[in-house]
Amino acid sequence: MPVKLTPPQAASLLPVKGVQLGFAEAHVRKPNRKDVLVMTLVEGSNVAGVFTLNQFCAAPVILCKEFLAQKSSIRALVVNTGNANAGTGEDGLNRAKQTCDALSGLLNLQANQILPFSTGVILEPLPVDKVIAGLPAAIANLKEDNWLNAAEAIMTTDIVAKGTSRQIQLGGKTITITGISKGSGMIHPNMATMLGYIATDAAVSQSALESIIHYAVNKSFNCITVDGDTSTNDSLILMATNLAGNAEVNETSADFIALRDAMTDVAIELAQAIVRDGEGATKFMTVKIEGGRDEAECRKVAYAIAHSPLIKTAFFASDPNLGRILAAIGYAGVDNLDVSALKLYLGDVLVAENGGRATAYLEEQGSAVMKEPEILVRVDLARGNASCTVWTCDFSYDYVKINADYRS
Amino acid sequence: MPVKLTPPQAASLLPVKGVQLGFAEAHVRKPNRKDVLVMTLVEGSNVAGVFTLNQFCAAPVILCKEFLAQKSSIRALVVNTGNANAGTGEDGLNRAKQTCDALSGLLNLQANQILPFSTGVILEPLPVDKVIAGLPAAIANLKEDNWLNAAEAIMTTDIVAKGTSRQIQLGGKTITITGISKGSGMIHPNMATMLGYIATDAAVSQSALESIIHYAVNKSFNCITVDGDTSTNDSLILMATNLAGNAEVNETSADFIALRDAMTDVAIELAQAIVRDGEGATKFMTVKIEGGRDEAECRKVAYAIAHSPLIKTAFFASDPNLGRILAAIGYAGVDNLDVSALKLYLGDVLVAENGGRATAYLEEQGSAVMKEPEILVRVDLARGNASCTVWTCDFSYDYVKINADYRS
Repeated sequence: MPVKLTPPQAASLLPVKGVQLGFAEAHVRKPNRKDVLVMTLVEGSNVAGVFTLNQFCAAPVILCKEFLAQKSSIRALVVNTGNANAGTGEDGLNRAKQTCDALSGLLNLQANQILPFSTGVILEPLPVDKVIAGLPAAIANLKEDNWLNAAEAIMTTDIVAKGTSRQIQLGGKTITITGISKGSGMIHPNMATMLGYIATDAAVSQSALESIIHYAVNKSFNCITVDGDTSTNDSLILMATNLAGNAEVNETSADFIALRDAMTDVAIELAQAIVRDGEGATKFMTVKIEGGRDEAECRKVAYAIAHSPLIKTAFFASDPNLGRILAAIGYAGVDNLDVSALKLYLGDVLVAENGGRATAYLEEQGSAVMKEPEILVRVDLARGNASCTVWTCDFSYDYVKINADYRS
Repeated sequence: MPVKLTPPQAASLLPVKGVQLGFAEAHVRKPNRKDVLVMTLVEGSNVAGVFTLNQFCAAPVILCKEFLAQKSSIRALVVNTGNANAGTGEDGLNRAKQTCDALSGLLNLQANQILPFSTGVILEPLPVDKVIAGLPAAIANLKEDNWLNAAEAIMTTDIVAKGTSRQIQLGGKTITITGISKGSGMIHPNMATMLGYIATDAAVSQSALESIIHYAVNKSFNCITVDGDTSTNDSLILMATNLAGNAEVNETSADFIALRDAMTDVAIELAQAIVRDGEGATKFMTVKIEGGRDEAECRKVAYAIAHSPLIKTAFFASDPNLGRILAAIGYAGVDNLDVSALKLYLGDVLVAENGGRATAYLEEQGSAVMKEPEILVRVDLARGNASCTVWTCDFSYDYVKINADYRS
C-alpha cells in the first residue's frame, strides 16, 4: 500500500488558466479505465521538456524531442497508457505520428504542435486505432477543472493518483502551479517510467522555463529510485500559459527564484509520491549522504544503498540489519574511503562508527526506527562538504507479484 | 528450489592428498548445524587467494590478505558460518586473530600460517568463544575423505551443498582437483558472499597458482550475479599440496594450460552452482553478449540485464516480457549504441531486430523458451567482435522471504 499517500481531492488541484484537460476510456489494453488524456494549451504558451536517457527510447519520446527542437509552438499533449510504443522501431514512430496527425486534425493544429506520450508494455505495437478512436471523447470533455481525471487517466500500476498545486504571488499577481505524475516501477535517476506534467499560468520566458526544468528535475525526479530500472518513456513537461498577468519572468527577474522554487517544490512532491506509491512499497526511505568530497560520490553511495535488494528487503521486514548498509557503502565505488571515519545513522540513532557498530547502539533503537513508515538513513562520509538526498522505497512480496503479473 | 542442482555424493568428492578437513557444530548462531570447518594442508603446500573489493571488507579478509602477503607458509584454514565478522572494526580484527591464535596452539603452528574466514550476519560481534570451543571437535574428525561434510559446514542460506572434483593426467601422473563453495545471496562480479576453496595435489609453483586463480576467477565467480550486492567477505582460495608426484607446473610448462583449464572448470561449476542455488531461484539464466567493441561494454549490457529486478521477476513468471530486456540494453551505458542494428535472441528465437519486435516472432515461441528451467538470453550488439557471458537467476517471492527473514 502507498506510504502516507492519499489521492488528491479534486478541489485541491487548482485549474491553470489556459490549460484544458480531457480523457477517454479507449480500451488501449483493458476496458473500463481512463487510458487516454488530451491536454490543450492556449496560444502563446511556452513548453519545456526533459526525457529519458535510455537509448531504446520510445517513439513518442523521439517525436517530443523533435517537435520541441522545432520550436513549433506546442498547443496540445496526448497521453495513452497500456502500451509504451517502445522497442517498436520505424513502425512505432509512424503510429505515434498517426496519433499526432489525428489530434491535429480534430484541433485544427499542425501535427508538430502536439506532444505525444505513451506508457505501458514495451515491444508491442501501439493499438493506434483505439487511441485515435478515443480522441473525440477526450476532446468533448476538455475543461480547466479536470486535473484529477487527468491524473487518473495516466495511471498504470499506480495505486493512487498523484497531483498537487501551489499558488504564489509574483509582482502582486497570484499565479497557480498544478502538476500530475505517474510511476510506479522502473524508477531511477535520469528519469523512470514516469510521466510528469506541471503547468503554470505565470508568464515565463522560454529560456527561464528551460532553466527551471533542469533545476527542478535534478532536485526531484532525478533523486528517486524504486528498482534501478530506467524506462524508455520517461518524460517531464513544464508548461507556462502566460495568462496570470504578471510581468514575464526571465532568469534575471527578482521573481525568478520564487517561481523556480515553487515549481521545484511541486516536482519534489510529485516525485516523492511516485516512490510512496512504488510497486509494492510499504516504507518510504530518505537516504541522505553528507560529508562527501563531491556530489557525485555522495550519489554513488546513496544509490548503492537505495538499489540494494538486500537492504530493501530488510526494510520491508522492519529488520535493522544495518550491516547490509555498511556493505553497500563499501562497494559503492568511492575511492580511498576511510571506513573507520564514516558514521551511519538510522533516524537520529548513531548506528555505526569506527568501522563497526556504535558502542552505545542498542538493537531496540534500530528496531523502533525501522517500524516507522518513513525512515531516514543518513551517512556522514567525513571527508568533505558535499551532500545529496535520494528517496526510495522498500522491496516487498508485492513488488515481485506486481511485476510477475504485469502483463496478465 | 535450486535449478538443476543436486548435492554431490560423498564418493564423488575425491580426497586430495595432503588436505584434511574437519567440522564442528559450534552453535555460532543456531544449534544442530555444522558451522565451523578446519582444513589443514601438508607442509610445502602453496596457497593463493582473491578477495572481495568491498571497502568494508571483513576482519578475516584483512587477516587473510596480510598473512598471504607475509608468505608465511599457510598450513590451515578455519571457517565459521553464522556471523560475518564484518563491520566490526578493531574488535572484529582482534576476534579473528584470537581464532587463529587458538587454532595455531592446537595445531602447533604460527598464527599467521592460518587463514580465517567468516560468513553470515554483518555488524554483530563474532561469538569467538563459541568458534574456539568448536575447534577441538573439528580437529578430532580431520580426515582427507571429508569434503562433503566440509561443503555442508560452510553453507548459510544455501539449500544444496556445492562441490565437485576432476582428475587429469599431468606428465603421466593422475592429479586430483576438488573444490567446494557456498553462496547464495549478495552474489556479484568481483566476488560475492561467497566462499570457494579449491585444492589440488598437483605440484604447482606459487606464481603459476597466482596466475591460475586470476584466470579462473575471471571466468567463473566474476561472471555470476544474484542480486548485485557485493559482500564484505568473499574469498576464493586455491591450494596445491604438491604430493601428486608430477613435475612442478609453472607458467611455461607444457602442462600449465591443462591444469589451469581443469581448475577453471571446477571454479565455473562451483560458481554456477551458487547461481543455481541463488536465493529463491527458480530459473538459471545465461546472458551472453556478442558483437561488442570490447569486453567492458559487453559486461555493462550483461549486468544491466542480469541485475534488473523487472527482468528477473518476468523470468520468474515465465513471461516473455522482452521489452524489459531492450530497456536494460538501452540504459546500460554503451556509447552511441545503434538500437536498430542489434539483435536479441531468447534461446534460439530471434525476438527483436530493427529496433523492435522481429517480424517472424511469435509470443508462443518466447513463452516456450521461458518455461524452461535454463534460459539463454543472447544479444548481438553488431558493432565488434568482443563477447562475454554472465550467469544469473530469476527473482521470486522466496528471494524476498529469505532476505526479509534472514536474521530471524
